[in-house]
Amino acid sequence: MKKADVVIIGGSAAGLTAAITARRHYPDKKILLVRKEKLVPIPCGIPYIFGTVGTPEKNLIPDTPLEKNNVEIMLDEVTAIDCGSLSLSTKSNETIQYGKLIIATGSHPMMPPIPGFEKENVFPVYKDVEHLTKMQKVMENAKKIVVIGGGFIGVEVSDEINKLEGKDVTICELLPHCLQLAFDEEFCEEAEKLLKERGVNIVSGSKVVSIEGKTKAEGVKIGDGSVLEADMVIVGIGTVANIDLAKNAGLRLGPTGSIWVDRTMRTSDENVFSCGDCAEKFSFFGGKPSKLKLASIASSEARIAGANLYGVQRESVGTIGVFSSAIGDHSFAVAGLSEKFAKEQGYDVITGVASGPNRHPGSMPGMMPQLVKLIFEKRTKVLIGTQMMGDKAVGELVNVASACIQHKMTIDDIACFQMGTHPALTASPVSYQYVNAAESALLKLS
Amino acid sequence: MKKADVVIIGGSAAGLTAAITARRHYPDKKILLVRKEKLVPIPCGIPYIFGTVGTPEKNLIPDTPLEKNNVEIMLDEVTAIDCGSLSLSTKSNETIQYGKLIIATGSHPMMPPIPGFEKENVFPVYKDVEHLTKMQKVMENAKKIVVIGGGFIGVEVSDEINKLEGKDVTICELLPHCLQLAFDEEFCEEAEKLLKERGVNIVSGSKVVSIEGKTKAEGVKIGDGSVLEADMVIVGIGTVANIDLAKNAGLRLGPTGSIWVDRTMRTSDENVFSCGDCAEKFSFFGGKPSKLKLASIASSEARIAGANLYGVQRESVGTIGVFSSAIGDHSFAVAGLSEKFAKEQGYDVITGVASGPNRHPGSMPGMMPQLVKLIFEKRTKVLIGTQMMGDKAVGELVNVASACIQHKMTIDDIACFQMGTHPALTASPVSYQYVNAAESALLKLS
Repeated sequence: MKKADVVIIGGSAAGLTAAITARRHYPDKKILLVRKEKLVPIPCGIPYIFGTVGTPEKNLIPDTPLEKNNVEIMLDEVTAIDCGSLSLSTKSNETIQYGKLIIATGSHPMMPPIPGFEKENVFPVYKDVEHLTKMQKVMENAKKIVVIGGGFIGVEVSDEINKLEGKDVTICELLPHCLQLAFDEEFCEEAEKLLKERGVNIVSGSKVVSIEGKTKAEGVKIGDGSVLEADMVIVGIGTVANIDLAKNAGLRLGPTGSIWVDRTMRTSDENVFSCGDCAEKFSFFGGKPSKLKLASIASSEARIAGANLYGVQRESVGTIGVFSSAIGDHSFAVAGLSEKFAKEQGYDVITGVASGPNRHPGSMPGMMPQLVKLIFEKRTKVLIGTQMMGDKAVGELVNVASACIQHKMTIDDIACFQMGTHPALTASPVSYQYVNAAESALLKLS
Repeated sequence: MKKADVVIIGGSAAGLTAAITARRHYPDKKILLVRKEKLVPIPCGIPYIFGTVGTPEKNLIPDTPLEKNNVEIMLDEVTAIDCGSLSLSTKSNETIQYGKLIIATGSHPMMPPIPGFEKENVFPVYKDVEHLTKMQKVMENAKKIVVIGGGFIGVEVSDEINKLEGKDVTICELLPHCLQLAFDEEFCEEAEKLLKERGVNIVSGSKVVSIEGKTKAEGVKIGDGSVLEADMVIVGIGTVANIDLAKNAGLRLGPTGSIWVDRTMRTSDENVFSCGDCAEKFSFFGGKPSKLKLASIASSEARIAGANLYGVQRESVGTIGVFSSAIGDHSFAVAGLSEKFAKEQGYDVITGVASGPNRHPGSMPGMMPQLVKLIFEKRTKVLIGTQMMGDKAVGELVNVASACIQHKMTIDDIACFQMGTHPALTASPVSYQYVNAAESALLKLS
């Protein structure tokens, strides 16, 4: 029988970060991480194996951080948790005794209940090297590829496939626009324009009815009766929390069906914590349940769970939702609520927009237009969301917004924001879009 | 006699931003901006005219923002302010009647009281197109160029000159290291290493004794008696506030000799405001007078001054000091206090450092190492400073720190920070340096 003070189930962003955090905060504890995968793909890097990065083996989370932090790794699959006896059973018939347990079992791709999804050459995007290798092999001989789902994964995978020689790739999206769950329409349209210019086909506002073909996929039939030809179909329509272990152990589930946790990331059992895609989340805005699943959220939650094992040190403020993506040299990013979603949630909003070059003077290398939209709650003037597009630095500029949202900065706070600027790195201090978007919102108040 | 509700003296970052802000907040007022320069250089862009940008004419603040905002421009030099009669006199004998006045007269280069600085081919860096054009002309025929002062301007100018064919450029710095007023030693050393690799010579810890030569500069004599050969000398050792107008008008001056203002940017006269390099500043940290002068600070102050003209809407929280620079593909940035300066100010500090790649996986394009150092006040655990180096996005990442400093975020706030990450844009969520630097500081507390 194995025994450890702290046992973590799962080795992706949440599990790894939880283990390192536990080590930092509890230097004397014996820590064991149990995972079933020999090789763990970097989740956000998966779309890039198809083009830029090349193979799944070049997109792995290394074991060195665990080794350096004296975390034991055990390759096995946990099959049951017994909260009463504080023990786990594994597939290879091991029993593991734990003092504190962190469940970081992640999520798996959602598959729609639509005829034909079981056919050959239809691939959900599993975070699994073997599966991804098989996808890549089939892709080599595929000419027409349809990607079902125009969210971040669908868009990124399509843009990467499009970089390969001789591929004809089409995104098939249910909503009127790609990326619409994250962005307001004007940003979706810009992203779609870029994708199309680069050669990605987009069929939006279209429900998938069935996958056509005998044993292999030959086409995707959509609502209007037409068929998008395909010799490979990739499905990226969302993910489902892996909760079976927790559920079978009698742990409480949350309103979205994920593992219930309180603000300290503790489950309904006092010795068991959970974080990442498998853990229930609540929104920073209004506190409703949130279905967002991101590696960045997972690692933030893991830093809370890992620190709280032997005494509460940190509490979650709820999920803000900060993410970014790139299409060629253009980057798109969002933090918090979109205007549309904020209104649907009942917020009375006021928005401000500013655009301009990301360099000063405009003749500096790397010049690109930058567009920033800020969304405020009208009465309190507190920032609740931002959307932006521009160069690669937008990936960090959006984190400025995240800090401002988390600390409830107001329109005036942001209008007087003390940013650093530089000709070769940022917009000019006079036209700095993030600040001027706040000023432009203010004008609408008066 | 001319008459306007709001008159702004000065047309650089502070004056321009103040004018636009005044227009935004007071749409019905007549606004007049008086400046002596026909063409206004972008102040931070000046180092780049020598290499990347090419000429001073390609580095100008356009008049279009003023025109669009219905701000009248008057090219003239204000020679006197009469606060009693609310009027200005100009060089061309105009009299201007104002309701509210904003003084944004900026600063001029400091010249040391050292023999030989009056010689030909010795150039301070005036923000003046004609002067800069002359510098560029002399530079064409100069082979050996010595830049006195290894602050941001000196470093940036030297790196740009070094890009030109056949130049031998040497920075001569009084302190042991370049950039030492902004950064701790380890960052200065990295910057110096890069500069040297690129071919810039650095002579540090050396006091300039005199400029040698008959009428033209031929060399710079330093403390140890040796002479750095030079057929051109550029001086970038700091700037002095332009306060003569304000002083002669009887306005109060602050402890550093700049124009005294309160938190609303109002001077000792109730109808006169001031902002930018000419205005006295106090530090966000401890409230002591601050000598920092940056275009980004100027524009933040201008957004306060411009909004407050007819009623207080905004107050300055004091100068944080956020700036960035680039050496080749490497960027350096700082917000708030360095460890050294914080200790000198009496803070009991605790620091955290983290380094790692700025991409995930590391094989993504644009991969560079990123280094982040965070400085916290030990008892309160509040962030008071950061220094970082890495890719161009560091120019925005430092603004995340600025937001966190301004809102007094603690080590734990930052350790649980909800950042957005992306393989092509940022470090991984697991190793995100800004967050892990906070975790590393925390370990030192226990």
